[in-house]
Parts: sequence; C-alpha cells; structure tokens
Amino acid sequence: MKIMVLNGPNLNMLGIREPDVYGSKTYSDLENYIEDYCTKKGIEVTVLQSNSEGELIDFIHHSLGAYDGIVINPGAYTHYSYAIHDALASVDIPAIEVHLSNIHKREEFRHKSVTAPACTGQIAGLGFRGYLLAIDFLSEEASCRD
Amino acid sequence: MKIMVLNGPNLNMLGIREPDVYGSKTYSDLENYIEDYCTKKGIEVTVLQSNSEGELIDFIHHSLGAYDGIVINPGAYTHYSYAIHDALASVDIPAIEVHLSNIHKREEFRHKSVTAPACTGQIAGLGFRGYLLAIDFLSEEASCRD
Amino acid sequence: MKIMVLNGPNLNMLGIREPDVYGSKTYSDLENYIEDYCTKKGIEVTVLQSNSEGELIDFIHHSLGAYDGIVINPGAYTHYSYAIHDALASVDIPAIEVHLSNIHKREEFRHKSVTAPACTGQIAGLGFRGYLLAIDFLSEEASCRD
Amino acid sequence: MKIMVLNGPNLNMLGIREPDVYGSKTYSDLENYIEDYCTKKGIEVTVLQSNSEGELIDFIHHSLGAYDGIVINPGAYTHYSYAIHDALASVDIPAIEVHLSNIHKREEFRHKSVTAPACTGQIAGLGFRGYLLAIDFLSEEASCRD
Amino acid sequence: MKIMVLNGPNLNMLGIREPDVYGSKTYSDLENYIEDYCTKKGIEVTVLQSNSEGELIDFIHHSLGAYDGIVINPGAYTHYSYAIHDALASVDIPAIEVHLSNIHKREEFRHKSVTAPACTGQIAGLGFRGYLLAIDFLSEEASCRD
Amino acid sequence: MKIMVLNGPNLNMLGIREPDVYGSKTYSDLENYIEDYCTKKGIEVTVLQSNSEGELIDFIHHSLGAYDGIVINPGAYTHYSYAIHDALASVDIPAIEVHLSNIHKREEFRHKSVTAPACTGQIAGLGFRGYLLAIDFLSEEASCRD
Amino acid sequence: MKIMVLNGPNLNMLGIREPDVYGSKTYSDLENYIEDYCTKKGIEVTVLQSNSEGELIDFIHHSLGAYDGIVINPGAYTHYSYAIHDALASVDIPAIEVHLSNIHKREEFRHKSVTAPACTGQIAGLGFRGYLLAIDFLSEEASCRD
Amino acid sequence: MKIMVLNGPNLNMLGIREPDVYGSKTYSDLENYIEDYCTKKGIEVTVLQSNSEGELIDFIHHSLGAYDGIVINPGAYTHYSYAIHDALASVDIPAIEVHLSNIHKREEFRHKSVTAPACTGQIAGLGFRGYLLAIDFLSEEASCRD
Amino acid sequence: MKIMVLNGPNLNMLGIREPDVYGSKTYSDLENYIEDYCTKKGIEVTVLQSNSEGELIDFIHHSLGAYDGIVINPGAYTHYSYAIHDALASVDIPAIEVHLSNIHKREEFRHKSVTAPACTGQIAGLGFRGYLLAIDFLSEEASCRD
Amino acid sequence: MKIMVLNGPNLNMLGIREPDVYGSKTYSDLENYIEDYCTKKGIEVTVLQSNSEGELIDFIHHSLGAYDGIVINPGAYTHYSYAIHDALASVDIPAIEVHLSNIHKREEFRHKSVTAPACTGQIAGLGFRGYLLAIDFLSEEASCRD
Amino acid sequence: MKIMVLNGPNLNMLGIREPDVYGSKTYSDLENYIEDYCTKKGIEVTVLQSNSEGELIDFIHHSLGAYDGIVINPGAYTHYSYAIHDALASVDIPAIEVHLSNIHKREEFRHKSVTAPACTGQIAGLGFRGYLLAIDFLSEEASCRD
Amino acid sequence: MKIMVLNGPNLNMLGIREPDVYGSKTYSDLENYIEDYCTKKGIEVTVLQSNSEGELIDFIHHSLGAYDGIVINPGAYTHYSYAIHDALASVDIPAIEVHLSNIHKREEFRHKSVTAPACTGQIAGLGFRGYLLAIDFLSEEASCRD
Repeated sequence: MKIMVLNGPNLNMLGIREPDVYGSKTYSDLENYIEDYCTKKGIEVTVLQSNSEGELIDFIHHSLGAYDGIVINPGAYTHYSYAIHDALASVDIPAIEVHLSNIHKREEFRHKSVTAPACTGQIAGLGFRGYLLAIDFLSEEASCRD
Repeated sequence: MKIMVLNGPNLNMLGIREPDVYGSKTYSDLENYIEDYCTKKGIEVTVLQSNSEGELIDFIHHSLGAYDGIVINPGAYTHYSYAIHDALASVDIPAIEVHLSNIHKREEFRHKSVTAPACTGQIAGLGFRGYLLAIDFLSEEASCRD
Repeated sequence: MKIMVLNGPNLNMLGIREPDVYGSKTYSDLENYIEDYCTKKGIEVTVLQSNSEGELIDFIHHSLGAYDGIVINPGAYTHYSYAIHDALASVDIPAIEVHLSNIHKREEFRHKSVTAPACTGQIAGLGFRGYLLAIDFLSEEASCRD
Repeated sequence: MKIMVLNGPNLNMLGIREPDVYGSKTYSDLENYIEDYCTKKGIEVTVLQSNSEGELIDFIHHSLGAYDGIVINPGAYTHYSYAIHDALASVDIPAIEVHLSNIHKREEFRHKSVTAPACTGQIAGLGFRGYLLAIDFLSEEASCRD
Repeated sequence: MKIMVLNGPNLNMLGIREPDVYGSKTYSDLENYIEDYCTKKGIEVTVLQSNSEGELIDFIHHSLGAYDGIVINPGAYTHYSYAIHDALASVDIPAIEVHLSNIHKREEFRHKSVTAPACTGQIAGLGFRGYLLAIDFLSEEASCRD
Repeated sequence: MKIMVLNGPNLNMLGIREPDVYGSKTYSDLENYIEDYCTKKGIEVTVLQSNSEGELIDFIHHSLGAYDGIVINPGAYTHYSYAIHDALASVDIPAIEVHLSNIHKREEFRHKSVTAPACTGQIAGLGFRGYLLAIDFLSEEASCRD
Repeated sequence: MKIMVLNGPNLNMLGIREPDVYGSKTYSDLENYIEDYCTKKGIEVTVLQSNSEGELIDFIHHSLGAYDGIVINPGAYTHYSYAIHDALASVDIPAIEVHLSNIHKREEFRHKSVTAPACTGQIAGLGFRGYLLAIDFLSEEASCRD
Repeated sequence: MKIMVLNGPNLNMLGIREPDVYGSKTYSDLENYIEDYCTKKGIEVTVLQSNSEGELIDFIHHSLGAYDGIVINPGAYTHYSYAIHDALASVDIPAIEVHLSNIHKREEFRHKSVTAPACTGQIAGLGFRGYLLAIDFLSEEASCRD
Repeated sequence: MKIMVLNGPNLNMLGIREPDVYGSKTYSDLENYIEDYCTKKGIEVTVLQSNSEGELIDFIHHSLGAYDGIVINPGAYTHYSYAIHDALASVDIPAIEVHLSNIHKREEFRHKSVTAPACTGQIAGLGFRGYLLAIDFLSEEASCRD
Repeated sequence: MKIMVLNGPNLNMLGIREPDVYGSKTYSDLENYIEDYCTKKGIEVTVLQSNSEGELIDFIHHSLGAYDGIVINPGAYTHYSYAIHDALASVDIPAIEVHLSNIHKREEFRHKSVTAPACTGQIAGLGFRGYLLAIDFLSEEASCRD
Repeated sequence: MKIMVLNGPNLNMLGIREPDVYGSKTYSDLENYIEDYCTKKGIEVTVLQSNSEGELIDFIHHSLGAYDGIVINPGAYTHYSYAIHDALASVDIPAIEVHLSNIHKREEFRHKSVTAPACTGQIAGLGFRGYLLAIDFLSEEASCRD
Repeated sequence: MKIMVLNGPNLNMLGIREPDVYGSKTYSDLENYIEDYCTKKGIEVTVLQSNSEGELIDFIHHSLGAYDGIVINPGAYTHYSYAIHDALASVDIPAIEVHLSNIHKREEFRHKSVTAPACTGQIAGLGFRGYLLAIDFLSEEASCRD
C-alpha cells in the first residue's frame, strides 16, 4: 500500500498561520505525525507540499501507477481550481479531500469545494486526525465495503 | 465513552432506496456494523433513526448530559433544517456530520450543508466506514490533539 | 389495484382555509369524492392526511409492497421538502403529484416543486378533479401506453 | 363541446425526436389517439401543430368564439414565450397546459413555465394520456365542480 | 380573552442554548413570566412548545374557535416553513410573530421570515418582554385602533 | 415624412384582451386614431401588426429607405427578443418604443426591455396617446433639438 | 391647468455635465424651453430643481391641492429612492417620469426605475422634447382618452 | 426618562397617503396619541419628522446625551439608508425600529431592513400602537430584564 | 456530401447592419463565398436564411434524410431559442454552430448559447471563414478522427 | 493649489462613533491634521462635512472653477449614492475617494463603491494618513506622471 | 509563418484522462498530428504544454516578436484565469482558443470562457481537428478577409 | 526599514500591455522609479515580479522576518486568488494592495478584490505614484497614528 499525501498552498505556514484557526503545531509536526502513523501501520507514504497549482497538478499526474491512494488538502485552491479537479479526474486512483478546519463554519467562499466532486469523499474539521482517518479509509476500503 | 448515532430521513430504507447510490446493504446491516465496532472498542453506543425533524431535535436535546459525542447523518434535512442546526448548537457536545455518499458529486441542492456549521466536522462519501471514522475521532480526540 | 392518496399540511383545513383560493368544499368532501369514485371504478383506495413531514415520509415508506400507486399533494412541503423527494425516490411505485390550485399563478415560492422530480408526473390547478385524473392515469397506465 | 388541441415546436418530430425521452410513437399516432378518444366521447376536436410562435398565437386568437376549451403543449416555448402567455390571457377560454415528459425532472430551464400562469392548470409527465385527461377535465369541469 | 402562545423548535433549551444570544433564563422562567402577566391582566393563556413543524401546525389549527389571538415564535422554522405560513393563513385569528433576539443582526438566513406575511405583525429583539407587548397588542387592539 | 407604426403580438386583441389593463377600445380604433392624427399633420403613416417575431423583423428591414421613422410596440417580445433588438440596430432609422400600459408597474418580467437599447427612446403608460407623442417627436425632432 | 416640473440631482449641471450624454444646452435653457411652451399653451408651470432627496419629497407633498400634474425627472434617485416612490404614491396627482437620455442604453444600474411604478407613465431618451410631450399628455389626457 | 420619536419620509402624509395601507388617521393624530400616552406615563417625549435623510442623521446625532431612548420609523429609508444605520450605530442609545404596516407582507423591497441591525429590536405591523409598545419597552427595559 | 447552411435573423442585413461589428460584405457575398468554395470541393450546398424562428425549425426538420451536415448561425436566437435547440436535437445530423463575431467579447447576453449543446461544436469570431472551416470539418470528420 | 476635502455622513461622530473601527481621535482632530499638513505644504484647503446627500452634491458642484482637486470620503453614501457619482462626473476636477477603514474587510455591502468609478482613484484603510496621501497625489500628480 | 500552439493543464493526460470525453489518442498523438500538418503546409509550429498558469502566461509573453499567431487550449483555466486573459491582451498577436470537447454541453462552469474575450475567436467540440482549423484560419486570414 | 514590493502577473508587460489603460512607461521604469525613491528616503527595497501564483505565495512567506512591510499589486489574481489572500493572512506584516488603474471603473470582475481583506488597505488608480504613497504609509505609519 502506497499513499501520496498532497498539501496545497500555505499549509507550510502551519503553526505560524492564523493559530486561532489552525492550531500551534507546525507543518513539520504534521509530516511527522502522518509518517509515524504510516510506519506503524506498514503503509508507504510520501508527504508533499506546494504553493503552486501547476506543481500540485504535476504531483497528481505522477501518482498514476506509483500510488494506491491520494490524500489531498488543496488549501484555498479547493474553492476555485477546476484544473486540480480535472487532474484528480484524469487519474484512476481513489482520493480523499481533507481540511484541517471546518470549512462550512468559515467565510462563505470556503463552503463550496470544486475539487471534492473528483474525489471519493471529503473529511473536514477534524484537524491533523483527519489525515489519519483518510489513510485508514484508503487502506481498509477493500475489506470493509464488501 | 457514550456515543449517540442519529440517522435522519429515509436512512431506514437503505438497501431498498436507490441501491446505485447507497449500496445494497440494509439499515439493520448498518446498525450491526456500528454496534459490533463499538463493542470491540469498548464504546457504549445508541443508534437511532427518525424521519421526523422534530424527533431528531428531541433526540439531540436528550443527548445533553447523557452522551459524550454525536454522530449525525441528517439525510436530506442537511440541506434546509436550520432547526436541527440550532438544536446541535444548543447542546455542548462534539458532533460529527456523516454522509454515506459524496454529496459534492450529486445534485446542486446537496452541495450545501446548513447543519455542518454547528458540528465539529463533516465526513462525506466514505460509506458505512464514515460512521466508524467519526466514532474513532470522537473517542481519540482528547489524546491526539494535544 | 390499490392506491394511496396522501395529503400534506393544511389540507385538513379545506373549506375553512382561504376559500377564495381553495373553494368552499371541506376535506371530508374531498375524501368522499375520491372514495366514491374509486368504489365505482373498483379501485381500493386509502386517503391519508398529515401535517407532519416525518409522518408523510413514513406513509410513503409503508406504501412499499402495499400499494400500486401513490397520489400525493404535499401542500407547502412541495417547495422545500427534499426529504419527501428522497422518500418518493426510495420506493419503486408510480406517484403523481397533485395540486388543487394552479401553483404557477401564485407566489413565486410556489412555482418550484422539489418533490415532482421523484414522481411520474404532476397535475396542478384542476381542483378536486385532479385527484381523479391521477387515479385514472395510474389505473389505465399499463393499457394506454402500449 | 368543441376543443382545440394545440401542439408547439418539434412535436411533429415525435417518434423521431429523442425516443428515450418521448417514446417511439409518432405525431400522427398522437393525432389519431386524441381524435379517436374524442369521437368516442362525442367531442368535436381540432388538432393543430406549428413550429412558429406567431402562428400558435394566431391559433389561440382564432379559438375565441369557436372553441370551448384549449389543450396546449407549447413545447420549448413554454419556457420563454411571454407572447403566448399574453395570447392565452387575451381569450376567455379555459386552457390546460400539457407536457408529455415530466419537465421537473429534466434540464433546469424546463422547470419553469411562463405560459402556465395564463392557463387553468397543467398536466406534465403523463405521456399521450395527459391530453385525454385534459380533455376529460374540460368536458366534465362544469358538472364536477359544483 | 383567550391567547395561545406557541413556541417553536429549541425554545425549550432556553438558558441552556447559546446564553450569549438568548440570556440565562430558562424556558420555564419564560412560561411563568407570561402566565403571571396574563393572570394579572385577566387574560386566559396557554403556553405551548414543540420542536415538530407538524405539531405546531396542528396547534395552530386547533386555535380556531378556541382562542382570540396567537403569539408565535416559530424559532428556526421562521425562515423556511411555508407550511406554518399556510397554517396561520388558514385560521382567521390575529397572530403576532415574536423573536427573542434581533434576527436582523444575526446570520443572513435569519433576516427573512416566511411566516410573518401570514401574521398581523412582528416583534423582534425585545427578549421576554416581546411576548408581553404582543399580548398587550392583542388585548387592546380593538379599543386603540378606532 | 413617412412613419411606420409597428404593433407586435396580441395588440390585435385590444378591447378584447384584459380590458382592465388595456381599456375597451379596439385595435381598429387605434389604427383610426393614429391615421386620423397623421392625416391632420400631413404625415404619411403605415400601421402594421403581426404576432410573428420573424415578420416583425422583416417589417423593420423593409423600412430601410422607405420610412423616416419607426414607432414600435413590440408587445411581449419587448422582454426577450434580442432578434428584434438586432433588427432595429441594423437599420439606420430613428425608432421610438411605445407601451400602452406602464410596464414598470406590472409583473417583474415586464420591467426590462431588451429592445429599447436599440431605439432612440421609450414612452410607456400613456395609452393610445403615447403613439401620437412618439409621432410628434419623430416629426419635430430636427427642429426642436438645434 | 397647473403643472409642476421637478428636476432632481445634477440637472442644474446641464450643458456642463457630460455633454456627450446630455448635450450642450444649459439648465436655464431647459427652464426657458418649458416655460415658453407653457406660456404658448396657456398652462401655468413651475419648474423646480433640487439635489436633495428630502426637498424633492417636500415639493411633491406641496403639489397636493396646488397642481394638476407633475412632470418629474428624478435623476439618479430614479434608481434607488423608494422614498420618492412613496412620496409620489402619497399624492393623488398624475405624474409622468421623464429622462433626457435613453436610460435603457446606459449602465446596468440605470435600467431599473424604482420611482416609475408610482407614476402614470415614463418617457425616456427624447431629450428636452420629452418634457413637452409629458406636458402635452397631462393637458390633453382628459379629452383624448374618452 | 426622555425619549426621541423620529419619523422618516412621507409619514407627514399619514391619513392622506394610501389610506388602505396606513389608515385614515393623520400625522398630527399620531403626534397627539404618542404625547398623550407619554404624559400619562410621566415620560418626556419629543416627536420629530423629516423627509431628509441628512436631517434624520442630524437628529440621531443630537440625541446623544439628550435622550435615553430612540423610537425610529425610517419610512422607505429603512430599505437602503446605510447612512442612517451608521448614525444609529454611532450613538450609544437603545433604539427601536417601528413600522406601521407589516412590511413582510408588502413589496419584496420592503422585506429587508438595513437599519434594524443597528437597533435593539423592531416592531412591525401594529399600527400606531407599535410606537407605544416601543416606548413601554424602553421605559421598562431595566426592570423587566433582570 | 450534402450540407445545409442555415442563417438566422438579421444575417440578410450583412454589410448594412453594424458594419463595425460585421464588416462591409453583404449577405449575397457570403452566399457566393460559401457556394464557390463548395463547388471547388465538390460538396452540394444549400444556403438558406430566415428571420423566423419557426421557419428555421422547419428547415432543420427538413434536413432529415436530405443532408449530411448542418452549418447553423442562429443569430440572436442563439441566446434564447430552446425551440431551435430541441429541433437540432430531434434530427440525427452533425451540426456546427457558427458566429461571425466573437460573441464572448460582446454584450453579456451573447456569452451564452442555448443552441450549442445540441451541436457537435461551435466556431465563433472567425468571420466568413468560420463557415468554410465548419464545412471542412463536416466533410473531413470521418477520415480525420479515426 | 486649492483642494476641497469633503466628508460625508457620520464622520462628524469620529472618536465617538465605533472607536474600535475608527479610532479615538475626533473629527476636529482630523480637520486640524489635514489643515496643518496643507499649511506646511503651502496648499489651500477647505474641509467640509455634511450628513446630507444633497448638500454633498451642492459642494461638489461649487468646486467647479474654485478648486483644483477634491478629496472625498462619502461615508455610507459610497455604497448607494449614484447621485454623488453623477455629481463627481459632472465636474472636471480630479477627485480621490478616501476611506478611513479597509472597507473590503467589513460587511458585504461596504465592498462595492458606486462613487469610485467617477474618481481618479481610491485609498482605503490607511486611517487619517489616507487623506494626506490623497492630497500628496493631487499636488504632485502633474510632476510625477510625466 | 510561425505559430505557437499552447496547451494548458491536464492536456498531457490525453488518452489517459476520461477517454469517454476526450478519446483514446494520447497527447503525443496530438503533437504529431499538428506538426505533420504544419510541415505539409510549410508552417513553423511550436507545440507547448504546461500545467502551470504562470508558465502559460510566460509562454504567451515570449510569443511577442517570435510568433505570428497563437492557438491556445487553456484547459480548465479557461473558466477562471483572468491572468491568462490579461496576458493574451498584452501581446498584439492573433490568438484562437480551441477546446477538444463541446464545452457548452458539459458542466455549467465550463459554459463560460474568461479567456475568449482576449482572442480573435473560439473553436469548440471539433476534437484534434479544431487545432488544424485554427491554424488554417491564422495562415489564411490575410488573404480570405479582403 | 525594509520593504518588499511584489508585482503579479503581466506587470512585466507594462508599456507594452494595453498602453491606453496602463500608460507607455515600462516595467523597468517602474522598478527604477521605486528604487530611486527608496534610496532617497533611506528605505531598503526589493522589487519582485512573477506571473506564477505559487511563486507570489512563496515570496510572501519569505517576507516573514525579512521585511517590515509589503506593497503588493496582485494583478488579475486580485480577483480570484484566495490562496494569495491566505498567504498574506499567514504572515504578520503590514501589506498595502496597489493597483495602477482604477479597478472600480473597469470590467465588473475587477470591482471585487479577494486579497484586500488580508491587507491593511488598498490604493487604486493613482498610477506609479500609488506605490510611493504605499511606501510612505508603511514608513510613517508608526509616527502618524499615535
């Protein structure tokens, strides 16, 4: 089982950026948190971050044939990047969209996701833990659905 | 740890209702699936279902002082029941909104949740498994956030 | 042939409620009118009324395996009850939506039906007679379409 | 009793046009179906079709003093012809709007009828049978309403 | 003079629910406050509460012939229950809509009342006192208008 | 001076059509009223009417080189016929849009004119007299503007 | 016959203000143009101008019992002054709204008049001449409508 | 206790203006009605009226340090005067917005108040009596809230 | 290979109509330009024009069994004729929508085509040449796609 | 160099009005701050304030021939006064719109300026300093642009 | 003649990405198809692809002085990249927008192009062939337009 | 004092791009203009430009701890880049948004800034000079606000 975790714009600023919204843990805490969990579960994981829409699309394309699942937090691109939507649709890999904060509680423009329709599902508002739940889902999906 | 799982309108029709959208498993399969999991995890769980908006509000009120967490799938009420929103806001208990299908992929009216802003977070599109992930989050929240 | 006629909120006030819109005949006149017609036609009919959205959903669910057709006047729920829409979609029984008044001529909010997309068709503005036409359609459908 | 049945644009293509939406019967089948029924019921009927908005308006004007009722399927003009609306409003003859398919289930633009507010009522989604129900209503209206 | 005071969803949670919005007094404080006032004024009052839209409609119907005025706080149903609107329109009794908080200052969805058009008037933002002012109006209306 | 007066759909029904909106005078009264006035003023006038959008466009095209001004009442086409707008823009002749009733006071859809932007100006709500004022303007324009 | 001509904000800048839109004639040219015409026609006229919404409302109120008709060009207030609308509705005097330019051809916000529904009619785009046509209408209305 | 009652545009036309909406009593009846009541209650009251938005703002500013409460009926300015909203927000005095008619029942543009968010609350549809209820609230607020 | 070229309203005014938008060549230049090209390519072509929506629909219906492809410039009908949309959908012939000007650069209402969804594709802004490119596509489609 | 600084409604309440938004300095501090700066720079300045839309328009008109530049803070009129927009457009003097607070961060209705399109530019959110920057721009414009 | 063909996000996934929408041919098939055609026609062509909005803008800037025409398929950026719009507007080179699929037939968000207004024209729905038609237009434009 | 000046997409085309909107000076003129000014004022400045949204976000992140203020002209990203908004919000450095042209005067889509809410303020329409005013504000802010 190989999973790509893809973080979009400004997630590298975690801990620095609006700590009242996103908490005081840093991006490298998030990386370690995910990697430790995957090591324990015997899952190969690659955690990537980019502020560039184009690079995120490149990463998604590269997942084809290389990963069994994608966990993606597209940051603010969630709300307008139809190009990331099309990238997710162009690869035949289950993807889960994750948001640290509850986007439904925040500004109006964050209520709509244009990328989620190209994913299997979405987890929002569950903090760092949301990433692990997404990974759990991807790794257990086969067994628990039949 | 005591959790109330609250299912809204038409979930009792699972397996019967639109199997191409919701799968062929029945509502009683869902109940067993959740109860078995909780038994294994040592969590007390009550699984309730109602087609009535008023009764769902009553259930939410009754959770106060009786449960440590709520997992709610408000069904179609998700999209217009400000009364359920207010009920969730009126009790001081963490709640997770769950949807079996990816609501962002379906009809326009299902893209907006008026109840999610009164919850901690939302999980959509992960089928039966979404309930377990929500229960995982509620039971582990204290330990994994600090 | 067994038909369930389901009347939604405020239809019990017929004859009392806004007689300039709905006429001076009472709800029990409507019940008799439908039952007499069905008796003559040899159709078994059950005429139900409820002001509760949840109870209307329950009635629809109960029709499964018990009735061959549904005639439903969802009253004001027509315009916002996605839950009734989902209930109608969850049972595999032909349903006809009926409105006493011509909803297209009244307030803007009455121009849109959210329940009609889950029905076979809709009859509006033809008064009590609309119910009989819907019953005619349901009982003759098989023969007249081939 | 004299009834004018007025069919709008593209109805002449019935059986040819999108058979998955409209069925495989032809326009001339529809004409015969209506005429046979009226003959049996002793109703004089004229079935007309035009693709021209102006000609449909002319037909409606000509009905004045010549017909006791109008059954009109304005086709796509239903959704934007305020001129047909005004034509129906300019003659004092009961009119029933009929649609073969359930317009509430189709593209967004077909959900709104601008012509229905100038009619007594509307029947949608009941196929060829909808025409007969409209004729029934017009011929029985006097007797069944009092 | 007999007045029915009707409280909608979540008002039973007063004092518990969002005390920064609604204050710390409980629902039973509100009941006593209204009943004491009416006793002093020689007005017969019945104070009812329900979280169910259908039950609220039933209560409104039952007021016919039994009460001289209605004071209604429809809670969140204010913003979407066209069925309650129709219920109020179906009985010929003066009704005053009351809101504890100033709904015009809160979330966008609370700015519009779909039930107020079926009432004589509306009082918002005046706390518990708003109920008494509504009762004052109903009891004095006859004398002060001429 | 040669003027073409062009009347759109349903104006032939004047006197018959909604007399509370349009008055009891007939279309032929309007024709006489305009022709008498022009005769007195020494203006050559042609008064035309059509229910067909295409024919109205043809008339506008034919005005080129044949008339010095157009007075047009496009009836309900005012509100959606971009084709008539384009026809008026395609001929280099001053045109005045006239409406018998005050369209700003009627249904929402009548508040917007899509044809007026291709005219010199618009006169609404002044009844038959509006036509004469438009003719006055066209015949005096040269002298009164310098 | 006594007519009040009321000009709203910025009309005093005529000739100075945007001459490509409004021409090079000054406001005092407009006053003279109107007064000369009325003198010739034996009509008493008062031409007033104000940039203040409140003063325009005062003028309208004062017309009651003092004038037989109002010609009003509310300038930019046309598009948002519901207070002027209410002022016109509060006096029982025929009023004609006049605009120098064709407002339907200009910026989107100028396409809608909120004051016109309280007038008899509207004349737009006919320059100074529009005022005279409005005066003609008011003085001849009685005779030409019967 | 000193209260300023502030009436906006067109209220001086009471009794004259649209008597079917506002009744036949005059503005001076309203002044007397309020003053008599306050005399009886031992409240100092000043009743002011202006058609000018600017003057209404001036009055609100002058209330600072001079009055203990404001009762304001902003007339049509209710629906667009953000400047009056800001004026009310700039003084630290409780204010109640009053409307004679039930604005929720009238034209769409009257359903939204832009001034109410800067007030304590709003009373609508209770006629002259609404002013007295607002005065009652302001004078009793201290005692009845604790 | 037989192709029908169908031109909608006002195209007959080419060269006359708004030469800054459409150029100075006439409609008959366009006819010759297309016919000459087809002659050279050995394609049978019929070039038709009508200002009537109904006649355009008739032409489309008549293409069935008579032509192998349609090139259609629906003029202003592009933006509201759902009837032409339905006509194109009713015949099983590849159709290309052509516009002389770049409709995306012009007024807002020209940005949306309601007819294009019933075509294979659309070419806009390429002048007369756009017709030839559409003809090229239709004649080469079979060979270049495999 | 002569500059008119024009302050709109409620700016006279500075220091009193919402100090968390506008700071604790008073309007007279603002006047002194601007006048001192202009004295130092050798610029003649007049600082005016009015709560009246009409008076603000009068001031703008009077600037013609009397001032070389306008600095205007239209307060809440910014968001709906098309009349002030037209006044600014009617005088040929460079104008800079200034706002103390960052209007883009506040309520939705403050995001749009209807007056800015008639100005050279806009400065928002820079407090008192914004006025000086606007004055700098007006006085240096000639020299720094070439 | 030198032409730059610019392909936007996800076009590199052709053949892999949603083959039911885009066909089974790969991106390198498209490159070859275009290059072969240009070789035959004696046109110098450069075919570029990028998933990055910024890089696409760079490519457009670099075309200045280096290419005689641009053929651009901006992929999903078509629907929101005002920055690409501005880039195309900043270079004085004729550009044709091309889409493989008929965007007017797909999701609502694909119906609007924000980049097309900065192009000469648009070709949509004609598959690979659309690129060649665009190249034909660019190379023949000079000769066929005079 | 260290300031970062950040220019977004297409600003490198200054002088080349739409000179009627942006003037004939080049981007390197702008760089020199800013650098010369800062040298004179003793301010350290870095002027950066990128067409890439991701790179602009990177630059903003890098400013943290390195600069005392940001002057940003996000070009067309102003109108949709919520990611740049979030980047500005993630660093605790005062930022001023600058636009060369008056965006309120141009196309509708340029009227709204999604990035300004994350800045201290905005300066628009003041050409090159706007950058210097922003730098003035940042360098004097501390002294002039107390």
